Amino acid sequence: MHSVTFEDVARAAGRIETIAHRTPVLTSRSFDERAGLAAFFKCENFQRGGAFKIRGAANFLYSLTPDERKRGVVAFSSGNHAQAVAIAAESLGMKATLVMPEDAPKSKMEATRSHGPTVITYDRHRERREEIGRRIAEESGATLVPPYDHPWIIAGQGTCARELLEEVPDLDTLAICLGGGGLLAGCAIAAKASNPAIRVFGVEPELANDYWLSRQAGHRVEIPPPPTIADGLRTPAPGIHNFPIVQDLVEDIVLVSEAEIKETLKFLLTRMKTVIEPSGAVGAAAVLHNKLPAGVRRVGIVVSGGNVDLEVLASL
Amino acid sequence: MHSVTFEDVARAAGRIETIAHRTPVLTSRSFDERAGLAAFFKCENFQRGGAFKIRGAANFLYSLTPDERKRGVVAFSSGNHAQAVAIAAESLGMKATLVMPEDAPKSKMEATRSHGPTVITYDRHRERREEIGRRIAEESGATLVPPYDHPWIIAGQGTCARELLEEVPDLDTLAICLGGGGLLAGCAIAAKASNPAIRVFGVEPELANDYWLSRQAGHRVEIPPPPTIADGLRTPAPGIHNFPIVQDLVEDIVLVSEAEIKETLKFLLTRMKTVIEPSGAVGAAAVLHNKLPAGVRRVGIVVSGGNVDLEVLASL
Repeated sequence: MHSVTFEDVARAAGRIETIAHRTPVLTSRSFDERAGLAAFFKCENFQRGGAFKIRGAANFLYSLTPDERKRGVVAFSSGNHAQAVAIAAESLGMKATLVMPEDAPKSKMEATRSHGPTVITYDRHRERREEIGRRIAEESGATLVPPYDHPWIIAGQGTCARELLEEVPDLDTLAICLGGGGLLAGCAIAAKASNPAIRVFGVEPELANDYWLSRQAGHRVEIPPPPTIADGLRTPAPGIHNFPIVQDLVEDIVLVSEAEIKETLKFLLTRMKTVIEPSGAVGAAAVLHNKLPAGVRRVGIVVSGGNVDLEVLASL
Repeated sequence: MHSVTFEDVARAAGRIETIAHRTPVLTSRSFDERAGLAAFFKCENFQRGGAFKIRGAANFLYSLTPDERKRGVVAFSSGNHAQAVAIAAESLGMKATLVMPEDAPKSKMEATRSHGPTVITYDRHRERREEIGRRIAEESGATLVPPYDHPWIIAGQGTCARELLEEVPDLDTLAICLGGGGLLAGCAIAAKASNPAIRVFGVEPELANDYWLSRQAGHRVEIPPPPTIADGLRTPAPGIHNFPIVQDLVEDIVLVSEAEIKETLKFLLTRMKTVIEPSGAVGAAAVLHNKLPAGVRRVGIVVSGGNVDLEVLASL
């Protein structure tokens, strides 16, 4: 029995309904022709806050007790999780404190601030965000919202695969990008409950292969901060709640190179006309570069987010 | 009585069903908050060939007699129309000859060639594509496919508004970009037939204001080649079939500046995560910069295409 069930995902879907978008599923003939199969892209880059993270954050905040809600939440993130917590807190009328590096991209800082949280910046070279976050939580009584390693987060992220399979029920495979494993674990639970025969794959950058190594080792392995362009997948180790779910339900972890991620990003941008961040292109990269086993015919790919600096796109 | 009726649009919808995509309608809270209304984006940038043009081209080719179909088609275009004719001809198993400037963007040339037409290049400074196209048509018996000035083209483009209103029936307004007027005329016919009270606006770049001037004059006015960044809207004069329909059904022509187009393009790219060509941002630019009259609450915006060179996006 996992720490998260399909019923948790279904309940999360009801809770986040008014906060998160139901994102569209796109297809592309040119992608399909090149990959030799039918791909269905669940476009979380069109999600509120530009990434799937709002699903888990909203479910987490919604699951707090009335008393906990009053004391507010705190999160540390330089990326999509911060914005998701800010949006979810705003929607639920809660206080949020976000700990962000002072050199975080201006666009992300501004987007996060626009939802009204308290933002505390820190010097990445001299201070540790975890300590700042925990100190704030202790002093204020606020609840720390983890980015992936929590059953409520996992259940929330699972709503993504649930929606995808409601819209395209006859998928035989899912290819899902893998950082800490919140999205993959939640989607695997949702997918296997809908169709036990569905094959679920996690996709990691070669440079951020902590899940792949952990699977080889049979236990959670930590790696040095990974230098991949896929900045959303730079987590150094699998989540404690996430790893056993992935071990049980995910058929395999496949790896993609930085060059494959970049080429896929460019393809999605120029042919599919959709702005995707490097992390969001990782699942598609595995499919486009034939990293999945033979026999895959109808694959669902989660495009996890679209928050990318225009300079990165320009550099392609 | 116009040269195109709602029945023509409905018939076109049936004909193009297997060739064109039914494109998604996206919404954006950040756009709505800034514009102070609810906007619904019909995303033709996700259309086959990256633009709405396939609708008209497919309807045109489908409407030819069996004998005409055998002799094939010819079109001259440096842009989206060429690719649309190539895709439609490929889908219907017809020969297509496309006359394209030898310095057309490589990406567009390659995308067009991938559908198997004969491509004839010419020197823009020494030759006139119209003459080359007409000579080929005469010699081969192929039918020339005009980009906008034809009832079959207009009826095909009208399927775009028809789909949008099927999905969001309670729109009070449409804002549609305006080059030769194929899209606007077709959409106005489709929209007014669904809901006679709907308000339809055409949007032109200030630098390509041939319809605006023609409306003032009460007859078709020709302007010098317009230097707008919206390269799909550089037609010098309204179409003969298009102008009377626009005069009858369109409430007003509104103008947007180059700066407004660029700012909107950037907004759609960074906030809505969708790749749009400058021409495709013109309708949204009018809404975002309050060019429509007061009282507009629920506006449908056609995002006409997404074929933009990455350098243009990078320059933003």
